Amino acid sequence: MGVISFARGVPSPDLLPVAELANAAQRALEQDPAGALAYGDGAGYAPLRQWIASRYGDGDAGRVLCTNGSLQGLAFLAEALFAGSGGRAIVEAPTYDRAILILRRFGATVESVDLHADGLDVDAIEAACGAGRVPGLVYTIPNFQNPGGVTLSRAKRERLVALSCAHGFLVLEDDPYGELRFEGTDEPRLFALDEGAGNVIYSTSFTKTVAPGIRTGAMVLPPKLHATIRRLAIDTYIGPTMLSEAIVAEYCAAGNFEPGVVRMRAALLERRDALVAALDRHLGDRAVYAAPAGGYFLWVNLPGVDADAVADAADGAGVPVVKGSTCFIDGRGRDALRLAYSACPAADMDEGVARLAALL
Amino acid sequence: MGVISFARGVPSPDLLPVAELANAAQRALEQDPAGALAYGDGAGYAPLRQWIASRYGDGDAGRVLCTNGSLQGLAFLAEALFAGSGGRAIVEAPTYDRAILILRRFGATVESVDLHADGLDVDAIEAACGAGRVPGLVYTIPNFQNPGGVTLSRAKRERLVALSCAHGFLVLEDDPYGELRFEGTDEPRLFALDEGAGNVIYSTSFTKTVAPGIRTGAMVLPPKLHATIRRLAIDTYIGPTMLSEAIVAEYCAAGNFEPGVVRMRAALLERRDALVAALDRHLGDRAVYAAPAGGYFLWVNLPGVDADAVADAADGAGVPVVKGSTCFIDGRGRDALRLAYSACPAADMDEGVARLAALL
Repeated sequence: MGVISFARGVPSPDLLPVAELANAAQRALEQDPAGALAYGDGAGYAPLRQWIASRYGDGDAGRVLCTNGSLQGLAFLAEALFAGSGGRAIVEAPTYDRAILILRRFGATVESVDLHADGLDVDAIEAACGAGRVPGLVYTIPNFQNPGGVTLSRAKRERLVALSCAHGFLVLEDDPYGELRFEGTDEPRLFALDEGAGNVIYSTSFTKTVAPGIRTGAMVLPPKLHATIRRLAIDTYIGPTMLSEAIVAEYCAAGNFEPGVVRMRAALLERRDALVAALDRHLGDRAVYAAPAGGYFLWVNLPGVDADAVADAADGAGVPVVKGSTCFIDGRGRDALRLAYSACPAADMDEGVARLAALL
Repeated sequence: MGVISFARGVPSPDLLPVAELANAAQRALEQDPAGALAYGDGAGYAPLRQWIASRYGDGDAGRVLCTNGSLQGLAFLAEALFAGSGGRAIVEAPTYDRAILILRRFGATVESVDLHADGLDVDAIEAACGAGRVPGLVYTIPNFQNPGGVTLSRAKRERLVALSCAHGFLVLEDDPYGELRFEGTDEPRLFALDEGAGNVIYSTSFTKTVAPGIRTGAMVLPPKLHATIRRLAIDTYIGPTMLSEAIVAEYCAAGNFEPGVVRMRAALLERRDALVAALDRHLGDRAVYAAPAGGYFLWVNLPGVDADAVADAADGAGVPVVKGSTCFIDGRGRDALRLAYSACPAADMDEGVARLAALL
């Protein structure tokens, strides 16, 4: 057997809706060739913005801004908030490694609060605010967190939104995995709890629900920030990839999105179960982990183990993983790994974990 | 008659190769679905990089980096060269307004040298270097310049490349219009004259030759800079829009690129001729202009006229144009306009210019 990758948070090729996207491409170029092939608006393709506004926002397409992947949206937001002026950003520990890099690249001082089984430590944010260290931005992945796999509880969501109102900081609710719950019930979005106060920015992506290569993400923004970031987008690339966005818009308009997500959830659940079974079998008493209720990732603590060294060796053993330490700003996580089960067929899971176990 | 726009450098919808792109989309998703829908490499879709390397580079796809439009490439380059460290960038006067914005945004001190009928003033660059003010980057649009319409002469090309070697500055050869010559013979590319010395970065785009909405540009870079910018790209959006690049790759592989360019050249020539005839008719003795031998733009000097005011009024008169003053860094150009003839059918040209003439 070749490489069994737990490294990348991507769907495996067999999960990609190829035929549906091919049909959507035909319709997009047949029905709106001038729109699909124009520079278009810096905020993205209007029909897609409307679909996103209806599903994730408050119905107002004027608050939606599509970008070439949601990470590009975070880059614009970081530039708008921190470039030149600096400021404080709070992230979860652990968090998405690329978010740390982007926030720092545009001048933010990045601090972290711990992530628990019910999500980020809201007490720590409250304490920071109370001590006069109000952040400019709190960056959270509330559902099936990358890399932790955990979900922010209802009570903490309400407290975080209340804190953002009381102290006037922005919250970026980065939610690429929210559609991918396969157990339990959804918590309300922070954006919804904010009730239009304008402190929460909602970010979504089609990477995990449709395909990475369409590179389409979107933010729902307060009006003033929307204008600022639209200007940054225009001054960076004039408009995002309209052809790709028009294809996604047709895919959604044709009713392909929901069935695609249902397929994705079923595959992810099967893979998660296979991964947990393999971990129980091969690492049972040496590892600490919890089964996520959705999403792409499972976080494994390996007490007393040099997980960085395991990860380095895992590349050579044909089972790449992500070092836990890359997901912290302070050198922690050296005894942890992030395992993405999204790209690994269930049948390969046991062999993959067996290879990892052999390295401990 | 509705709005007749001379403002935007875009092809009109009737020039877009819609059917060819629809067919290319089918093939891309049929033949390489996993590649077209993956994150892929931060430097772009491999088959497209190879096509670009063969046509514009030295055959080495490893030096090609595709971005979501060529302006995004300039943004990465500016960030790589100037962010944090500052430095000096020389542009042409006049030049592409968005280039000025991007260079300044990432920390460059922007200076300009005048543009003449045979291209930028190389003497001025030599004088700056001699005075110890060696730039980090010279930004030039050598063919059918935006907005000036002029082309850099062979002799000046050789001198500019020799200067870049002698003083060790980089030249960005921004060449979105080079394929669109409809008169005369091509000058050698600066990249070719550089003969691998690594001082010239070649930039191309499919916006003006295929369609804006595919948002695909590319740079051919020295190896070290390629690695730096690929890292910036990965840290900004992971990978560019693979689906769009796979469609463009199939479009090119199928032999659609050349016939598309031939069609585009014929349409542009017809439009340029119609514009020049209309200018001769309506503005003959009040305006100074030269017919460009290719590309999208004609530059009009209106001695003694407040062209900024004309441009403001032109919006209301349904004939938007670009103010010449936006294309300078020093307030010049208030008596000039940029007219894009690319999007205006030849039959509308006379009416458009008549509207402009009525505002003088």
